Amino acid sequence: MEWLNKGINAPKGFLANGIHSGVKRKRKDLSMIMSEKPCQYAGVFTRNVVQAAPVRWNKQRLEQGDAIYGVVINSGNANACTGEQGEKDCLNMAELTASSLNVLQEDAINKENILVASTGVIGLNLNMDKIKPGIKEIATTMSASQEAADAASEGIMTTDTFTKVKSLKIMIDGKEVMLAGMAKGSGMIHPNMGTMLSFVTTDADVDSVLLQKMLKNSVDDTYNMISVDGDTSTNDMVLVMANGASGATVSEENDSYNLFKEAFDALNEELAKLIIRDGEGATKFIEVTVEGMKEVSEAKKMVHAVITSNLVKTAFFGEDANWGRILCALGYSGAMFDPEKVDVKYISDAGEISLLTEGKPVVFDEEYALEILKEKEIKVLVSCHQGEEKATGWGCDFSYDYVKINGEYRT
Amino acid sequence: MEWLNKGINAPKGFLANGIHSGVKRKRKDLSMIMSEKPCQYAGVFTRNVVQAAPVRWNKQRLEQGDAIYGVVINSGNANACTGEQGEKDCLNMAELTASSLNVLQEDAINKENILVASTGVIGLNLNMDKIKPGIKEIATTMSASQEAADAASEGIMTTDTFTKVKSLKIMIDGKEVMLAGMAKGSGMIHPNMGTMLSFVTTDADVDSVLLQKMLKNSVDDTYNMISVDGDTSTNDMVLVMANGASGATVSEENDSYNLFKEAFDALNEELAKLIIRDGEGATKFIEVTVEGMKEVSEAKKMVHAVITSNLVKTAFFGEDANWGRILCALGYSGAMFDPEKVDVKYISDAGEISLLTEGKPVVFDEEYALEILKEKEIKVLVSCHQGEEKATGWGCDFSYDYVKINGEYRT
Repeated sequence: MEWLNKGINAPKGFLANGIHSGVKRKRKDLSMIMSEKPCQYAGVFTRNVVQAAPVRWNKQRLEQGDAIYGVVINSGNANACTGEQGEKDCLNMAELTASSLNVLQEDAINKENILVASTGVIGLNLNMDKIKPGIKEIATTMSASQEAADAASEGIMTTDTFTKVKSLKIMIDGKEVMLAGMAKGSGMIHPNMGTMLSFVTTDADVDSVLLQKMLKNSVDDTYNMISVDGDTSTNDMVLVMANGASGATVSEENDSYNLFKEAFDALNEELAKLIIRDGEGATKFIEVTVEGMKEVSEAKKMVHAVITSNLVKTAFFGEDANWGRILCALGYSGAMFDPEKVDVKYISDAGEISLLTEGKPVVFDEEYALEILKEKEIKVLVSCHQGEEKATGWGCDFSYDYVKINGEYRT
Repeated sequence: MEWLNKGINAPKGFLANGIHSGVKRKRKDLSMIMSEKPCQYAGVFTRNVVQAAPVRWNKQRLEQGDAIYGVVINSGNANACTGEQGEKDCLNMAELTASSLNVLQEDAINKENILVASTGVIGLNLNMDKIKPGIKEIATTMSASQEAADAASEGIMTTDTFTKVKSLKIMIDGKEVMLAGMAKGSGMIHPNMGTMLSFVTTDADVDSVLLQKMLKNSVDDTYNMISVDGDTSTNDMVLVMANGASGATVSEENDSYNLFKEAFDALNEELAKLIIRDGEGATKFIEVTVEGMKEVSEAKKMVHAVITSNLVKTAFFGEDANWGRILCALGYSGAMFDPEKVDVKYISDAGEISLLTEGKPVVFDEEYALEILKEKEIKVLVSCHQGEEKATGWGCDFSYDYVKINGEYRT
């Protein structure tokens, strides 16, 4: 497994680009990722009852088992709570993308072969006057270049402050297989999918049933284990497209499965962590591990409670070794554990400190604790000593800037 | 039902006081409420797995059906996560209170007749050298005066910026019956009891089984329908003491039940709302009603999701008519509803505005919306048109000051 500095179009046969269509004032707002050959497709979507038009569209494609050529993505407008017009606009985006691509491709591409994603403000209709010419422009300018990949990753940003891209290479049966991903999201991020979009491409040949199973498992341990602010949005999705162009096949029957799974999970974990590193207003990256539980599901509940607690998050912002808030959050997580057996440690590059041992406060050096907490990356290790299972999740602190960003930005 | 400007010692036979014992640097930190005659007692407690020593003590009293004379409360230290020493200190507080009172009273009061409450920092042992002499002092200085009632309500404050006191009078069988309450809490407030303490006294004669039932019902619609920050603390409790000194009996068999229930629920609702009005850093008071659901429990889930959403809260702070975040929160609440039927209105003293009708955005006047949102009290009305049930809850906005208070204060 070798990490690369490439973009979403790194796997063979994928093209991409991002442009400014005019939905946003200045920044890029329209991206496209396309495969020269039809792809196997897997997707995981928000569980919010209120689902944006593109979420419904992509779910239909999954249900109907449509072959997928690619995805068109706009930022600046979520096309959520937009009624019938929203459905029409979404369909229109797929249709226009298909017809624009048909000019270039041999195969006849239909709207059902195109996925759609939108992110941004809720409740306003899309400015199709800008998006329509944008789609035509981008369809004819996609490429396999690094520059185009960068542009694609920029076109999906909203309050993001940097692009989120990862790629890697593995060898299967002597063939080079590439996986690449790009994601966006820095607010409304929460387990069960926040306003988060993530797109993964690979040139491996993976059956869509297997791909969906691997995606579901991977999401549970990666994107669903991060939280910026506890809100789950109307638009979230992770889409995976596998076009098989590498010539290597991934099957459950042989080693290729484990090789691919390891790379796929690692890619998703890194993309998820990048989202947290760009958490709205975040100044610190917090990794929380709960170990020694009988059930993974219980350990996950505890991790979730800690990474979503506003009081824990503000304490990290204040660089306060306030383990009481950690224990309090564990206590209301819904998991059953014996508080009298719990150890809590903080770990960073500056060192490691025990705050609680067997449920009892440790008298610790406040200055040393502050040194540890001054670091940008902090690990919280909770040991419960009642089983062998564990879970890890990632969150960030809670700063003045979070309030500023969200008091002013209309999503 | 007549609201009064009196304190916790307004019901006949109750005494109270609050003093500075030295746990805090300057402010009052020790309060006592005591009845001259033994009381029927009801209590509802935090569901956090991590429970402070006084929570466990008071729950035992409830299980064993002990007659209760009163409660001793310290602020500045929560006596939570303090191990065996914490248990001993709590027991010691009850014991010392009982023995100090025996100097004054005819009946032999035991530690089992005394409730204990603590609020403040987690994980530090109580400074009993300060609390012991404090208990002796306060036991001999309690009175039925307004000044003493004010002092009692001050002694339980932590980050509170004002005391929270309500009292009212009803007539049962021609007899004057008083109910009074005092509460504290402004952070770690959340449905299922945050770091919130509330004490209610009455001179009605109410059987403890009936009192417990009424309290449970009342808490579900009042304290459990408020949220400041989504955290549920280790120390929360609502304690009710009924000493019967009015000579009036409340029984399920006659009108007295409804009269008393109405007053009791109203008192608890007002105390709960006072806690929200003092929400840490809050600048606005938000009332959320969800109507037109088939089940109250579903409507409550929806109210909870809205009042706990950081994105909704920051939007109110920013005076932004961002109904999309409301709909998004309703969507991930876990309740099932048809988004295409939902109406959303904002209402304040400045007027009323429809933002969403049958799931479709209403084109509204942004300036008029701003006028409505500039008010300190805002009502959000969500109508789902699928049933006859409704629920109401109360929350506050989310400001820079919340982050400041909680980045600096160690709870």
